[in-house]
Amino acid sequence: MTHKIGLVGLGAIAGKSHLPAIAGNAAFELVAIASLQGAMDGVPLYRDHMAMLAAHPEIAAVVVCTPPRARLEIAADALAAGRHVMLEKPPAATPGGLDFLAGVAGRHGLVLHTAWHSQYNAAVDRARDMLAGKVLARLHIDWKEDVHKYHPGQEWIWNAGGFGVFDAGINGLSILTRVLARPLFALGAELHVPADAAVPVAAQIRFSDGSDAVMTGDFDWGWTSGDLREIHIETAEGQKISLTASGGRLLVDGVEVLAPQRAEYREIYADFDRLLREGVSRVDGAPLALTADIFLAGQAVAAPAVRH
Amino acid sequence: MTHKIGLVGLGAIAGKSHLPAIAGNAAFELVAIASLQGAMDGVPLYRDHMAMLAAHPEIAAVVVCTPPRARLEIAADALAAGRHVMLEKPPAATPGGLDFLAGVAGRHGLVLHTAWHSQYNAAVDRARDMLAGKVLARLHIDWKEDVHKYHPGQEWIWNAGGFGVFDAGINGLSILTRVLARPLFALGAELHVPADAAVPVAAQIRFSDGSDAVMTGDFDWGWTSGDLREIHIETAEGQKISLTASGGRLLVDGVEVLAPQRAEYREIYADFDRLLREGVSRVDGAPLALTADIFLAGQAVAAPAVRH
Repeated sequence: MTHKIGLVGLGAIAGKSHLPAIAGNAAFELVAIASLQGAMDGVPLYRDHMAMLAAHPEIAAVVVCTPPRARLEIAADALAAGRHVMLEKPPAATPGGLDFLAGVAGRHGLVLHTAWHSQYNAAVDRARDMLAGKVLARLHIDWKEDVHKYHPGQEWIWNAGGFGVFDAGINGLSILTRVLARPLFALGAELHVPADAAVPVAAQIRFSDGSDAVMTGDFDWGWTSGDLREIHIETAEGQKISLTASGGRLLVDGVEVLAPQRAEYREIYADFDRLLREGVSRVDGAPLALTADIFLAGQAVAAPAVRH
Repeated sequence: MTHKIGLVGLGAIAGKSHLPAIAGNAAFELVAIASLQGAMDGVPLYRDHMAMLAAHPEIAAVVVCTPPRARLEIAADALAAGRHVMLEKPPAATPGGLDFLAGVAGRHGLVLHTAWHSQYNAAVDRARDMLAGKVLARLHIDWKEDVHKYHPGQEWIWNAGGFGVFDAGINGLSILTRVLARPLFALGAELHVPADAAVPVAAQIRFSDGSDAVMTGDFDWGWTSGDLREIHIETAEGQKISLTASGGRLLVDGVEVLAPQRAEYREIYADFDRLLREGVSRVDGAPLALTADIFLAGQAVAAPAVRH
C-alpha cells in the first residue's frame, strides 16, 4: 500500500530533489500538486493547497516545498484536514511557529516530519558517533556560496522571515546540532544586513556549548570562489574531525574516511515512509532555535545593496 | 533554617526590589554580594562572583541581578559550584543559553528559578483562569515607557544582547505567555533600530496562536506620555479582559475586578523558598522564546540615534 502525496510549491527544490525522490520510492504516489508556478505532465495542478486537498481526499500526506513564510499556514491547514505533513527546511519561519505545528500534529495524532536534508548524510552520522561524549577544544563552520548562483532573481530570500544567508547556512547549523547532540547557543554575532534587505547576507558568529571550546562561524552569501560548506572540529584530545562538501565527506586528521554518493532526499523519503507506517513524528527544532539565538544575540551592521 | 544567599549585581533592580524582599522574608539570609558597583553596610562585598563563592561555602543559592549578557556565565559557575540559582528576567540573553542552564541545573540536581516578576500578580493569575479554554477574537499589547526615566545613562541596553525595548517589553510578553498558556509565535514585526544601537527602541508586532484571532503589539521606549503597559483581550464571545498597570490591575468589560497592592518580589521570594524546600526548578522559557521569534521574523527599520 502506497502513501498518496500532495506536493505544495513546485519550485527549484521540488523539481530538483523531491520529485525524483518520490518517483524513485515505490512507497509513495504523487497524486496532485498545488503551486503558483510550474506544472508536471499527468499530475493535476491546483493554484491553492485547500483546493487540492478538497479535490483529493485520498491524499494522506502533504509535502510542503514553498518558501518558509508560507509553510506554517499550509501545514496547519493540511493537519487540520487530517493529512500528515513533511516540511522542507527550515520547517517554519520561527521556532514558535514550529512548536505550534508540532502541537497541532500531536493533538490530531498525525505525523509531522521536519526534513533537514543536510542531516541525511552517512558522514554526518559517523561524525556524530565519533564525537559522542567528547570534550571539544575548538569548532569552526564555514558556509559560503554565491546567492546569485542558487537563487537567481528570487525576492523572498531578502524579506523578513526569508532568512537571508541562513536559508543556506541553516543546513550547516542542522549538521552542527545533529553531530554535537548537545544544546548550542549563540554568544554573539555580526549580521551584515544589505541596505535593500531585511535579513543578513553574511554573518560571523560566536557559539558555545557551555564548555571552554572556542566555536566560531563564518557565513557568506556573497562568496563567488566556489561553494565552501565545511565544519572543522578539534577535540580536547587533539583529534581533528572535518565534515566537508555540505556534510557529504568526513575527514579524520586530514584523511578521508567516508565520502559516499549523496542520497539525501532518497533517505528523507525512506525515513518519511517509516514514520508514516509507525505513526511517529520527527520534529527537530534545534537548527531553527539556534538560528533564532543568533538573530537575538546578533548585532546588525550595514552592508551594500544586493538586489538587482 | 534559612537559605543563605549570595547576590550578584547590585544595580537598580537589586537595590529597589531584591534587597527589600530578602530583608522581608525570614527564610532568607543575605551573606555576601558580588558587584562592580555599590555596597551594603554589614554585607561583605566582592568584585567577582567566583571570589564570593570561594569565600562563602555557606552560600546555598545565588541571585543574579546583572545585565542579561553576564547572567549565563555567572549562573553556570554558580551551578557548577553546587549552588541553586535565581535569575532576574530575562534569565539569559538567548533561549539556547537558558536551555543550557536548565540542563546544567538538572544534571547537578539544583534548583533554577526564572523570576519573571510581572507574572507575580494576582490579576495575571485571575486573567489566566478566566481565559482558560477560551477562543479569542483579538488581542493587543501596548508596552510603552520612557527609557531615559528607567535607564538613565545605561549603555548595555543598547548593545547586542541588551534587548533594547524588549528589556521592558519582555515583561509584557511574560504576562502574555502566562495568561494565554498556549504557544504564541510571531508572524512579523517592524523593529526600529536606532543608528547608534544594535537593538530596537520600538517595535510593532503581529502575533498568532494559530487561531483566527488578530494579535498585535506596540512597544515603544521613546514614549514620554507616562507608562502605558496594558494588554487588551476580546474573546470570541465578546468578553473584554484587560490587564493594565503592568499586570497589576484586571478589568472585565471595562469594570475593575482586581487591583491588589503590588507584591511581585515578595511573591518571587516566597516562591523561591518553596522551590528550594521542595528541590524543584521553575524554568519558564516562553517569554524569551517569543522575543527570539520576534527578532527572527522581524524587519529592521532605521530609527534616529538614542544615546546621549
